[in-house]
Amino acid sequence: QTFKIAAIPGDGIGVDITQAAIRVLDTLAHVNGTFSFEYTNFDWSSKAYLERGWYMPPDWEEQLKKHDAIYFGAVGWPSVPDHISLWQMILPIRQRCNQYVNVRPTRILKGTHPPLAQLQGKPSDLDWVIVRENSEGEYAGQGGTTHGHEANAVATELAIFTRVGIERIMRFAFETAKLRPRKKLTMVTKSNAQRHGMVLWDTVFYEVAKEYDGVVEYDKMLVDAMTVRMVNKPESMDTIVATNLHADILSDLAAALAGSIGIAPSSNLDPTRSCPSMFEPIHGSAPDIAGKGIANPVGAFWSAAEMVRWLGKGQLDEVADKFMVAIENVTGQPETRTKDMGGSANTEQVTEAVCKEIEKV
Amino acid sequence: QTFKIAAIPGDGIGVDITQAAIRVLDTLAHVNGTFSFEYTNFDWSSKAYLERGWYMPPDWEEQLKKHDAIYFGAVGWPSVPDHISLWQMILPIRQRCNQYVNVRPTRILKGTHPPLAQLQGKPSDLDWVIVRENSEGEYAGQGGTTHGHEANAVATELAIFTRVGIERIMRFAFETAKLRPRKKLTMVTKSNAQRHGMVLWDTVFYEVAKEYDGVVEYDKMLVDAMTVRMVNKPESMDTIVATNLHADILSDLAAALAGSIGIAPSSNLDPTRSCPSMFEPIHGSAPDIAGKGIANPVGAFWSAAEMVRWLGKGQLDEVADKFMVAIENVTGQPETRTKDMGGSANTEQVTEAVCKEIEKV
Ligand SMILES: CC(C)[C@H](C(=O)O)[C@@H](O)C(=O)O
Ligand SMILES: CC(C)[C@H](C(=O)O)[C@@H](O)C(=O)O
Repeated sequence: QTFKIAAIPGDGIGVDITQAAIRVLDTLAHVNGTFSFEYTNFDWSSKAYLERGWYMPPDWEEQLKKHDAIYFGAVGWPSVPDHISLWQMILPIRQRCNQYVNVRPTRILKGTHPPLAQLQGKPSDLDWVIVRENSEGEYAGQGGTTHGHEANAVATELAIFTRVGIERIMRFAFETAKLRPRKKLTMVTKSNAQRHGMVLWDTVFYEVAKEYDGVVEYDKMLVDAMTVRMVNKPESMDTIVATNLHADILSDLAAALAGSIGIAPSSNLDPTRSCPSMFEPIHGSAPDIAGKGIANPVGAFWSAAEMVRWLGKGQLDEVADKFMVAIENVTGQPETRTKDMGGSANTEQVTEAVCKEIEKV
Repeated sequence: QTFKIAAIPGDGIGVDITQAAIRVLDTLAHVNGTFSFEYTNFDWSSKAYLERGWYMPPDWEEQLKKHDAIYFGAVGWPSVPDHISLWQMILPIRQRCNQYVNVRPTRILKGTHPPLAQLQGKPSDLDWVIVRENSEGEYAGQGGTTHGHEANAVATELAIFTRVGIERIMRFAFETAKLRPRKKLTMVTKSNAQRHGMVLWDTVFYEVAKEYDGVVEYDKMLVDAMTVRMVNKPESMDTIVATNLHADILSDLAAALAGSIGIAPSSNLDPTRSCPSMFEPIHGSAPDIAGKGIANPVGAFWSAAEMVRWLGKGQLDEVADKFMVAIENVTGQPETRTKDMGGSANTEQVTEAVCKEIEKV
């Protein structure tokens, strides 16, 4: 079985870590022998944009849809305004490829030092899956500006929530929670201050929740209070569902509390499988260390493991699990950790070590 | 000089802590001898709403505006939907009384145990003032719902940013930063994904920043990355300016990182002084411990100290500073800390202790 992967390294360290991920994926396939990967490399980046004026060609959707999955590095570069780079690449892909779920598992990998005193020695107290609505809400893109340069300028952002959009993300979140050992779902909202869209969000949540009564335990948190709970009672949560913006914020906080933003993965999923899903580490392009060969590839590897799991439709779970064991065997050793994890290894050394572990486990 | 205070205890522990704050404020005035307080008590609460169907009477604005300041406890009660309680009381007050700034200082008071390992023994590494836009943005209240009960339901939240609104909050933030020892301002945005209102936010920030070049050091953070920086590099920030929603989230996180949500104050200011400003702890009504007399009154006291500072227009800074010393002398003693701070004192005991300290210092 050959999986066709659209590889979009993008900007900065996205290039380093995509290369590393491909090498590791190929090793995994080689060792396993029952599947392989075929990559198409897309040079859609800020660098290319600065040369030719566009990120993706007009037929980008068609091109991507010829693949089984998309592997994405990072996008963003100082000389291009962020709202241009994002709205010309990552956000259209998420939205037009029907990737309405973004799954962000967070736990403390071996060798990671979490900053919260209460987690030191008890890393298993932080084990979350954040299910992010990925297609609408605060990222709908609507809104505009009137009198931009005048004293009476007004600009708006329109967050849009549809029943269809809310229902499908809630259902996905409950199904995710149901498969986790603790079967617990926390729904995040700001329906006290945002009384239209967020109230629909709450309403649909409780409707869907009825179907899971007695199966999944659930509760509701306001987004501000949620940050307090994440800091004070990490062990009290398991699966978390939140809007596009809230989950964006909470997942970065989660990664920081788990000890490193460099290890966190993210899966942009189309659960209907009518479009390719996209896998990307949650970190950015990190211009300050780009091209130095020192980026932490662990988030990229974890994302790759999630890609394997998704592509396998249940058949490659064991392979993905072993991949994760290999990764943790490497992060568990001080010699093979990058700087952000307290070590001094470079990207190449970590990649090499993970390949060796894959050959062993 | 007599200051007229509109006291709105509100719901739950709001009642306990407002009572405590009034007792301490009166002690302060008595000891000082040059000023006093005169309170009007407003029974605007969820309990009253459940009995009579409204929180505030039609002439609420007129009534409040007869006062020099508003002291607010907390609002919110399980049997009233939050968006009703908030939009019938706290949000209209903030918005119609021109309180366009919400100032939220955060530091680690004596006796507080911050949850971050790196801060233990180095509490002064976390010393922030969050300046929150308090009149528009994501709390503008506009938006609506269409087909609410149908499959094609859609609901919106419209965030509104005006140049006037942005400019005045940026100016306030720069002026705040200028008076702080480190003279540093971090501006928070999400202009990569939100490309209309947030881009105007950025634009106006850089315009105002020009006036402070060489005077205030400033930088820009995306709200998601900001949570990571707050966890990893608390010492790298000083004054922070953010939108209504972003600052709401970040200030709760800040309070948690500083060790307790029960100690954090907030000042809703009308810098033009055409309306009374409002002072409230950032914690909520905490129905679970309401009426038990065990709520932590420290956030209420700190808010009261900020009220004194504001009312004094520079003349009572020393009084407010001494008030803070008295508070910290009390939190510094294990016997006079409430449960959330690791002690077992009740509200009454902490209040008594602060009054005694005020008489001493
Ligand atoms: C790059 C940006 C659009 C993005 C987001 O806000 O979704 C990033 O922060 C993420 O979390 O994937
Ligand atoms: C009570 C609620 C409206 C409020 C807010 O979101 O502003 C609270 O969380 C706060 O921070 O003061």
